[in-house]
Amino acid sequence: MAGNTFGEIFKITTFGESHGAAVGVIVDGVTPGIEIDEAYIQKQMDRRKPGQSSVTSPRKEYDIIHILSGVFEGKTTGTPLFVNLYNQDMKPEAYNDIQNSFRPGHADFTYLQKYGIRDHRGSGRASGRETAGRVAGGAIARKLLEHRGVQVVAYTQEIGGIPCQTFDEDAIERNAVRACDPIAGAKMIEKIEQLAAIGDSCGGIVECRIRGVMPGLGEPVFDKLDAELAKAMLSIGAVKGIEFGAGFSAATMLGSEHNDEMDSDGFLSNHSGGILGGISTGQEIIFRISVKPTSSISVAQKTLNVNGEEQEIRTIGRHDPCICPRIVPVVEAMACLVLEDLYKRQAANLG
Amino acid sequence: MAGNTFGEIFKITTFGESHGAAVGVIVDGVTPGIEIDEAYIQKQMDRRKPGQSSVTSPRKEYDIIHILSGVFEGKTTGTPLFVNLYNQDMKPEAYNDIQNSFRPGHADFTYLQKYGIRDHRGSGRASGRETAGRVAGGAIARKLLEHRGVQVVAYTQEIGGIPCQTFDEDAIERNAVRACDPIAGAKMIEKIEQLAAIGDSCGGIVECRIRGVMPGLGEPVFDKLDAELAKAMLSIGAVKGIEFGAGFSAATMLGSEHNDEMDSDGFLSNHSGGILGGISTGQEIIFRISVKPTSSISVAQKTLNVNGEEQEIRTIGRHDPCICPRIVPVVEAMACLVLEDLYKRQAANLG
Amino acid sequence: MAGNTFGEIFKITTFGESHGAAVGVIVDGVTPGIEIDEAYIQKQMDRRKPGQSSVTSPRKEYDIIHILSGVFEGKTTGTPLFVNLYNQDMKPEAYNDIQNSFRPGHADFTYLQKYGIRDHRGSGRASGRETAGRVAGGAIARKLLEHRGVQVVAYTQEIGGIPCQTFDEDAIERNAVRACDPIAGAKMIEKIEQLAAIGDSCGGIVECRIRGVMPGLGEPVFDKLDAELAKAMLSIGAVKGIEFGAGFSAATMLGSEHNDEMDSDGFLSNHSGGILGGISTGQEIIFRISVKPTSSISVAQKTLNVNGEEQEIRTIGRHDPCICPRIVPVVEAMACLVLEDLYKRQAANLG
Amino acid sequence: MAGNTFGEIFKITTFGESHGAAVGVIVDGVTPGIEIDEAYIQKQMDRRKPGQSSVTSPRKEYDIIHILSGVFEGKTTGTPLFVNLYNQDMKPEAYNDIQNSFRPGHADFTYLQKYGIRDHRGSGRASGRETAGRVAGGAIARKLLEHRGVQVVAYTQEIGGIPCQTFDEDAIERNAVRACDPIAGAKMIEKIEQLAAIGDSCGGIVECRIRGVMPGLGEPVFDKLDAELAKAMLSIGAVKGIEFGAGFSAATMLGSEHNDEMDSDGFLSNHSGGILGGISTGQEIIFRISVKPTSSISVAQKTLNVNGEEQEIRTIGRHDPCICPRIVPVVEAMACLVLEDLYKRQAANLG
Repeated sequence: MAGNTFGEIFKITTFGESHGAAVGVIVDGVTPGIEIDEAYIQKQMDRRKPGQSSVTSPRKEYDIIHILSGVFEGKTTGTPLFVNLYNQDMKPEAYNDIQNSFRPGHADFTYLQKYGIRDHRGSGRASGRETAGRVAGGAIARKLLEHRGVQVVAYTQEIGGIPCQTFDEDAIERNAVRACDPIAGAKMIEKIEQLAAIGDSCGGIVECRIRGVMPGLGEPVFDKLDAELAKAMLSIGAVKGIEFGAGFSAATMLGSEHNDEMDSDGFLSNHSGGILGGISTGQEIIFRISVKPTSSISVAQKTLNVNGEEQEIRTIGRHDPCICPRIVPVVEAMACLVLEDLYKRQAANLG
Repeated sequence: MAGNTFGEIFKITTFGESHGAAVGVIVDGVTPGIEIDEAYIQKQMDRRKPGQSSVTSPRKEYDIIHILSGVFEGKTTGTPLFVNLYNQDMKPEAYNDIQNSFRPGHADFTYLQKYGIRDHRGSGRASGRETAGRVAGGAIARKLLEHRGVQVVAYTQEIGGIPCQTFDEDAIERNAVRACDPIAGAKMIEKIEQLAAIGDSCGGIVECRIRGVMPGLGEPVFDKLDAELAKAMLSIGAVKGIEFGAGFSAATMLGSEHNDEMDSDGFLSNHSGGILGGISTGQEIIFRISVKPTSSISVAQKTLNVNGEEQEIRTIGRHDPCICPRIVPVVEAMACLVLEDLYKRQAANLG
Repeated sequence: MAGNTFGEIFKITTFGESHGAAVGVIVDGVTPGIEIDEAYIQKQMDRRKPGQSSVTSPRKEYDIIHILSGVFEGKTTGTPLFVNLYNQDMKPEAYNDIQNSFRPGHADFTYLQKYGIRDHRGSGRASGRETAGRVAGGAIARKLLEHRGVQVVAYTQEIGGIPCQTFDEDAIERNAVRACDPIAGAKMIEKIEQLAAIGDSCGGIVECRIRGVMPGLGEPVFDKLDAELAKAMLSIGAVKGIEFGAGFSAATMLGSEHNDEMDSDGFLSNHSGGILGGISTGQEIIFRISVKPTSSISVAQKTLNVNGEEQEIRTIGRHDPCICPRIVPVVEAMACLVLEDLYKRQAANLG
Repeated sequence: MAGNTFGEIFKITTFGESHGAAVGVIVDGVTPGIEIDEAYIQKQMDRRKPGQSSVTSPRKEYDIIHILSGVFEGKTTGTPLFVNLYNQDMKPEAYNDIQNSFRPGHADFTYLQKYGIRDHRGSGRASGRETAGRVAGGAIARKLLEHRGVQVVAYTQEIGGIPCQTFDEDAIERNAVRACDPIAGAKMIEKIEQLAAIGDSCGGIVECRIRGVMPGLGEPVFDKLDAELAKAMLSIGAVKGIEFGAGFSAATMLGSEHNDEMDSDGFLSNHSGGILGGISTGQEIIFRISVKPTSSISVAQKTLNVNGEEQEIRTIGRHDPCICPRIVPVVEAMACLVLEDLYKRQAANLG
């Protein structure tokens, strides 16, 4: 209700502020008897953490996870699986200067309006650090989906106006921006480094492909597969839009162009993005999200302080000039959470 | 769970198939003591119904609503408000030809895959007729939001590649396509009529503006205001994408461009679309959705029947060549449902 | 949230006031492809309706049900199944005298305190009539449980201090009070008729036995099988207590007496009532509820009116002097709803 | 869904096994800006912990709580409040003997049936230790209820057949069994010590009184105040029954006796237990629960092992011969959770 739980049957509840004692997640509804180990989860955490390369924040969040319940002798028990991460390398004093100011593009203003109180240190719960719990929970979902034959892969499609021209899946984890086109990726890195040098930031587009989903997944009418994925993606801080299949270009297509015809080999096209009437068709599910430029920049900007007085502000600190590379594992995690939950909902429907 | 309920506190549960006996909605969580009458709801129903103009389906769904509970002596009682609409002017026999075929772009295939059974008549529950219950429930939400000083207005921004060039709010309900630019609207109508003549269809873009929302609405972290709106909009059948504020264009902006600065007069821009960290800023909330071209077209297309045999199909019937004009009231209804629910959740948070 | 929905996956949402236009239920989460007909549901409705015998209210509620959605060609489709009952034989003017008074033992006072408004006609939604929707929904659950091999049977164990001495299951539906001992049943009827003659009422105890449930049903830790049944039963208007297995007598037992030992034939006793740690053992599940005497009596009683003035009140009307016989099908319906929902939750856990 | 979350708006999610690394709770939906400190919560934890007196288990669970999120500078922030307790003084090897046996009266058998796997150490999640998270969460609720003027007090009413004869509220926390009658309490202690000497156990009755609740709390029709309390209490491991107000004795009363009359001073009696139609009347809310004798006894009993072979078992260990004294704070915690949640739901209804 207060918005810290995601999912209906397979669900996660996250807690923790950026510069509090810890962040973490309770994963509930886990299938019992599944082998799981901390290394499997840690691998996903390491993809999310800062400090991976020259284009990400140099902060050191080691993001060491600890499973404190729900696993016995290496297998899930069906009881809540709790994953804790103690915060480290915190510099809350770095935020003293801004504790009474509203940083442009940040949630400082809205959190204070909503609650009448806020933990200003590193954005509190509005920090990207909150996604650590999501990625840990998503790793459990990913493990369960492996048993179902489902693969989820996200990657950078565009940064700073530089789009990928090819789709080379093997390249994704081999370049610092997780682009699906290594040549475009190199240009993106260059662009980010130029912007970092002048204290500015840029946005981009992340795409996600999901394979191996059986036809029939998704709950009409309100909990459509695309509706649930849209909610999941828009719940990530920097995301400003989402489109499925033909997406916004569908607006300029004719019905005779957009409809996906079928013959005995299956669908002849995939403008729908693998979803019809909110239910998976069995084709590849494909969507794209728009990622806004990082709000924390050291370029001077006008703002107000908590007393309503005008100020100029520069957000000095250790921030990602483009968040796309680190959003990729979060997108995958959220997609895994949606899918595993809908699989369990379908099992309930028919069970 | 099975996806027929929307909302957490103020919530609707809809039922009914396109060519079954009735469609309708139970609205639960209604504030007691609010004056309400059937005419108020009927007005919204009439905006949604087919047969309004030359560019909408000539079917006659009179959509006469009946409130069967939850109102006593003209006021809400706080108990469930049930609105029923008996189906009329049904021609289920019109669907006999297609009962064993999968119409391209329709949910025929996926419903059968999901449930192993489907009501083929007029798409059953995947029909646009399902939105009647949403609009009825949304009208109750709209009434409650009036008391909060909130206005929600949606309109066609683009159809068939023809965009609006101006924003004339008064024009919206005065042209058949609900465009915010009457000159562009006239061109859109012409375009639709041309396509209707050849049995084809087109898509478009619908925009929505919400005014009067207090700062502080929306539940971080998963139930962000934009996340809830995204889910609501993607739950509408023909919608393929959504973007807030700068949306997909944020992907090519710099942080110094995208961040909305503040001075003592308030925000200096609204690239965020009125939402920061998932919480309303108090500015106008603005989003756009992509609407795909209507799937039902009489152009011949390849498909399969339920036995997996190849077929050619033409969907003959009374369909909208462009669904944008009739999606407008549905978009408003869903937005109202999201907002009223989040207002009540905020009351609970602080209460 | 507002309390009109019961269940998590297989769930019902009821609506309607006693003397409004209609009452009914939306049943969601129904397994698709199950044969169902109105006669099956009607049979359960007829067990609940007033006017069945000399010991129940002479009101004529024909309780004719209509399925308006979710069934196609005699089978469930997996979409919401809506059951409507139009109210008949209403005499709202019979309540004019009491519209401004708080009847002792009734919810008149508390509804007004809660909502600031109330539909006084026949108790509005606090009426026993509200259970019609439950019994309709419970009949769907019962049908699904038949396929699982589960039987639910409730009966009167005691009325007016007269307990059953034997357990004759075949006798239950053959005597007007639904006692499991026909000789005690005859005495109960006599007692009720005596009380009816002087305008008073009495309470009783209803017992329920559930057979055929697999071991492993129920969700620890909060949604234990007994916890869910307890909530379900206490949600019925006149119920004041519940006990499982040894129940309140467990308070005076030793551990060595109460523990159910096992040998190779299974459990040697059933003090637990078929539930350990909130999970079914596979034994018969057994519980008892306490039913208070009907509040509506024509004996003069002191009360207040809505202006806080003292009054004497006699509730004249067509009321059951003992509600036990008509609560029996409601108890069964609620038990069926709990069980079917937990079966689907278990399918989700493992699915 | 999997049953580890309690509440709708103010809600707790607990995790942890008896002999795992930790147990704890995420409390979500906490009102922001409320002063809270660890000592306040610790006080309630200390009432629940073992080793308090001669009549409780000599295990040393120090139950030191740590708040890891949701509190900033001594005040709640409205974000999830996470309370962790590391397990200490664990002796999992003490359970080696029973890892393959089903202890009579325990959930060993049912957990294995449900999940196909179980953490046998100290009953895993079916342990009384699981209630630590509840008491921590309940302490937060209690703090919020203090601001509303609500008091919740539970106490032992009967142990081993020895009932309290008086109600001395001040005596409750001054005797080891938390009896409301210190003389009866002394006899209860003697009885427990006798049973402990022979390795047996006994049950009892715990009563709870709630004062200061406004009229109007509780959600008809399914989420009645008594229904929610019943679920909460039956979710506690050893509880076998609950009754409100006159409870089971209502079954033998006449309507003219049971109805609570009113005059200008208010209600003249409280047979309803402070609840009418599922909504609070403003009177004292009163209910009683039946507590079964502790299952862990060293008296020899017949059972099976996991291979279905017959065995004799004695449960040697550090167990409470009567759990009533330590259930008292758990009953209060669960009651506080129900009340605070319903207060927030009422705020949402009207908000």
